[in-house]
Amino acid sequence: MKILAIDPGYDRLGIAVLNHEKSLGLLYSECFIPEKGDFEARLLKIVKKIRDIIGTHTPSILGIETLFFTNNQKTALRVAETRGAIISEATQSGLAIHEFTPLEIKIAVTGYGRSDKKSVRAMVPRLVDCKKTIQFDDEYDAIATGITCAASLRTRQLRAAPPKV
Amino acid sequence: MKILAIDPGYDRLGIAVLNHEKSLGLLYSECFIPEKGDFEARLLKIVKKIRDIIGTHTPSILGIETLFFTNNQKTALRVAETRGAIISEATQSGLAIHEFTPLEIKIAVTGYGRSDKKSVRAMVPRLVDCKKTIQFDDEYDAIATGITCAASLRTRQLRAAPPKV
Repeated sequence: MKILAIDPGYDRLGIAVLNHEKSLGLLYSECFIPEKGDFEARLLKIVKKIRDIIGTHTPSILGIETLFFTNNQKTALRVAETRGAIISEATQSGLAIHEFTPLEIKIAVTGYGRSDKKSVRAMVPRLVDCKKTIQFDDEYDAIATGITCAASLRTRQLRAAPPKV
Repeated sequence: MKILAIDPGYDRLGIAVLNHEKSLGLLYSECFIPEKGDFEARLLKIVKKIRDIIGTHTPSILGIETLFFTNNQKTALRVAETRGAIISEATQSGLAIHEFTPLEIKIAVTGYGRSDKKSVRAMVPRLVDCKKTIQFDDEYDAIATGITCAASLRTRQLRAAPPKV
C-alpha cells in the first residue's frame, strides 16, 4: 500500500510517497515551490503536481496535516484553500483521505506530543527506509505525516481484528 | 460575457450564472445542498456540480466572496478548503478568478458598506433581469456577488479606456 503524504502550503509544499509493506520505505519526496504569481496560478501548478505524482506512484491513501491558526490569518486561509484543492484532487483520483493534527504527528514520530521540530526531524530517517538525502524541512514534515498515517493504519487494522476467543 | 458567481459553503452553496451584456440577466441560480457525509465526499459533490454548471453555461469568469473569520474557526477553515477546491476547478476550466469582500458586495449592491442582509436582498431583483423566483438566502448572496463582479468589470473597462483627447 502506498501513501501520499503532504505538508500543505501554497509557497512551499512538502510531498512524500511512502511504501507501506512489512517495513516503511520512502519512494519519493520533494519540496515543491511553485513559481511566484497569482494565487490561482500557484494553485493550478500545485494541483497538476499532485496529479502527476498520483499518476506516477498510484498511492491509495492521502495523509495530510490539519491546519491550526497562526498569527497570520490571511496565510492560514490561503493554506486552507490549498488543502481543499489537494483533497479535492486526491478524492477525484480515488484516494482515501486521512488528516492528522500536529500533535498526532509528534506523538507518532517521537512518542511525545510536545517535541520540537528538531526531534521530529531526527527521528524521521530512523523510521523509514530512505536511500536519498532529505534536504528540506517541508520534506521532513511530509514524511513525518506519512509515518503517522502508516502507524494509524496499523492501529486501525489491530482494532478492526476480531477479538481472540 | 457570462459570470459564474458563488457564495461558498460546504453544507450550502449559493450558485448563480449571470449574463453580462447591455443589461445584466440571471441565467441560472440555485442553493446547492450536498448530501451529508464526510467532508471530502461533500467536496467531491460540490466540485462535480461546479464542473457541470461550467460545462452547461460556459462562463468565462468566476466571482467569489472572500472569507472572513467567524467565531467558529473550524467552520471557517472548511469553507476556505471548499473555496480552494472551487477556485482550482474553475481555474482548470480556464475561468478568470475575481474575489470580492463582503464590504465590496454591499457597496456594489446597495451603495452603502454597512447595509444589512435584508437591504442587499431587496436590491438584488432590481439590479438583475430575473424571470425566476429566488428562494434561498445563499442564492441571493451568489447573485449579489455576480452583480458586484459585473460592476467591477465595467469600472475596470472604464479605467482601461484611453483618456479623451
